[in-house]
Amino acid sequence: MKLYWSPVELASRLARRGVKYNFASGAPDPDLLPFDELRKSFERVYEEYGKAIIAYPGAGGLRELRVELSRYVNRVLGINANWRDVIVTAGAQHAIKLLSQLLMRRRTVVYVEDPTFVETVAPMKFQGAKLIGVPIDNEGMNIHELERLVKIHGPGIVYTVPNCHNPTGVSLSRDRRKHLIEIAREHELTIIEDDPYTSLHSNAEPTLKSMSDDVVYVGTLSKVLGPGLRIGFVITNGALRNNLEKLEQHDFAASTLNQYLVYDLLRRGVADDVVRRARELYPRKLRELIEALDEYLPNALIYRPICGFYAFINTGVNAWELLRRSIRQGVVFVPGGKFFISGAKENTARLSIGSIRIDLIREGVKTLSSVIMAT
Amino acid sequence: MKLYWSPVELASRLARRGVKYNFASGAPDPDLLPFDELRKSFERVYEEYGKAIIAYPGAGGLRELRVELSRYVNRVLGINANWRDVIVTAGAQHAIKLLSQLLMRRRTVVYVEDPTFVETVAPMKFQGAKLIGVPIDNEGMNIHELERLVKIHGPGIVYTVPNCHNPTGVSLSRDRRKHLIEIAREHELTIIEDDPYTSLHSNAEPTLKSMSDDVVYVGTLSKVLGPGLRIGFVITNGALRNNLEKLEQHDFAASTLNQYLVYDLLRRGVADDVVRRARELYPRKLRELIEALDEYLPNALIYRPICGFYAFINTGVNAWELLRRSIRQGVVFVPGGKFFISGAKENTARLSIGSIRIDLIREGVKTLSSVIMAT
Repeated sequence: MKLYWSPVELASRLARRGVKYNFASGAPDPDLLPFDELRKSFERVYEEYGKAIIAYPGAGGLRELRVELSRYVNRVLGINANWRDVIVTAGAQHAIKLLSQLLMRRRTVVYVEDPTFVETVAPMKFQGAKLIGVPIDNEGMNIHELERLVKIHGPGIVYTVPNCHNPTGVSLSRDRRKHLIEIAREHELTIIEDDPYTSLHSNAEPTLKSMSDDVVYVGTLSKVLGPGLRIGFVITNGALRNNLEKLEQHDFAASTLNQYLVYDLLRRGVADDVVRRARELYPRKLRELIEALDEYLPNALIYRPICGFYAFINTGVNAWELLRRSIRQGVVFVPGGKFFISGAKENTARLSIGSIRIDLIREGVKTLSSVIMAT
Repeated sequence: MKLYWSPVELASRLARRGVKYNFASGAPDPDLLPFDELRKSFERVYEEYGKAIIAYPGAGGLRELRVELSRYVNRVLGINANWRDVIVTAGAQHAIKLLSQLLMRRRTVVYVEDPTFVETVAPMKFQGAKLIGVPIDNEGMNIHELERLVKIHGPGIVYTVPNCHNPTGVSLSRDRRKHLIEIAREHELTIIEDDPYTSLHSNAEPTLKSMSDDVVYVGTLSKVLGPGLRIGFVITNGALRNNLEKLEQHDFAASTLNQYLVYDLLRRGVADDVVRRARELYPRKLRELIEALDEYLPNALIYRPICGFYAFINTGVNAWELLRRSIRQGVVFVPGGKFFISGAKENTARLSIGSIRIDLIREGVKTLSSVIMAT
């Protein structure tokens, strides 16, 4: 049975014991979540739609939400999509699980950045997919290397977080994007673009989906409106769209109430407001993290993060042992070993600026560095 | 690709065009749903828990909800369960999908009532399971026949709705329950008990789970508090519990907000109030349906329904063709062919009293009978 606990979950359990410097969580900044507006939206959909908000969800998702999502991705991400090609899921992780079930069987070849996000590849591994790690540098996935590997391992899926990569923070360069789309056409590769962070950064590169309609796009409102609403979506078309709609009916897990709430938050422009504020706050937080690392842990950064929530560092010592010590000083992070496809590097860690307060970042890095020095 | 649309979904799409007599939907009676209380619960958890209600859901579900669910199943269903053995899912359908992924592979033998609920077996078929239909009569699944089939096809899973069966409305007799549990022990069968309706009827038999702790129990709040909340649960233990908690992390689809809402509705006794009113209303509705059928379509009933939402009838003519005609008279139901495992009987239909108004049931059956007679 290919089942294991995510290191994010394990580190977060430690974090629940009241830590001061939470670099572990990929959750968005609580100060940005539109909590008052959520209450307003509840009142609005309660009055306007009545008991429809707790009826069974329809296949593919609430039509009103799908229409609003197609407008949102157009405004914010430059993606043109018919609302019928937007399939609502119970979060992006649910979307990736459904896509894994549809596209992957035992020995299906899946090319992923190495390191990659440990939680999204878990359902792929469960399907028995053969994950092939592709090296990543400051310009994102090495597409020449991908091409070389495809010639060895054959056609398959490319799972990628091209913008604001998790856990490295890098983005795929413009040239590599074009190259990736070319070789996907040439070698019959299906690209799954997992994209939770683009909307949060004004310096992010255009999405792959906006460059090629063949790309299967996975989006989410979790980082903008709150992860506990569990509303994500897939944009795709043709046979895959049809099969996804049917497979989604095997659990129809996306709450009707939350679909109405997100629909209302989108139509009232609340999501856009959050996006505006996010584009001011998260880059500042990431800069704060990088500057603190440069000062207190010079040479620790393995990649130069450009956007998103994460920095991936060399800890110099075993990261799980470091975590056990740093937690006593109030610092939690996610050890990086499990993010690797081949050859876990246990002396690495993912630091997230998602939910930690900006004024604690510097102090947290300083504390972490003192724990490392004392080792 | 083993994917198809459910006939419930297809019939419901027709029903959306404003039908008067909706016998298709398995949704609960809108008049019973505690809609005002839902608003109160929103306000309460909003004030009490703040932004925690839209944070990432934790593995296994919100602890407070799991504790309340363990009390609820004890009060209402006679099941003793430690809260740690209650795993929250995004509805019962999601629970059954997860269990199918854990317990079923290609050619795994799954014994099911024939007919059975077409939607819950869809994820089993997708896993490649080999479904073996076991005849069902007015006392539920024929356990002697099950035993005979097990000797031919070998050990595996028994998927059953022992109380208020969907689509036949029958319940497994006390003697057969004991027999089922005995042969499950003897032949290494894992029993999945799918139980959406027991709480709604005071005449229901004790759950299998209350008779044997080995049973894997699937419950839901959909019929009591509203299906759009997507909160269900599994009660199991040992390795399966641990694996289920991990597999649930591949999508963590159960909304945190809705977990808090259901938790609050349970702790304030709102669910118990609904259960009390349901136990008065649904038996009256089912009686009304049976009496109308006995009057206008005598001999149509294939089984004597005892509880739950459903009656399964012989329509005498192809049910999809009948549906196309009856819909013009405002009557919608679900054609029964797809509920069969072996040998679809296309001249059958499932009638549901779930969401139709009680005063429309008699008139609806009369109208349906006139359409049948005019054929």
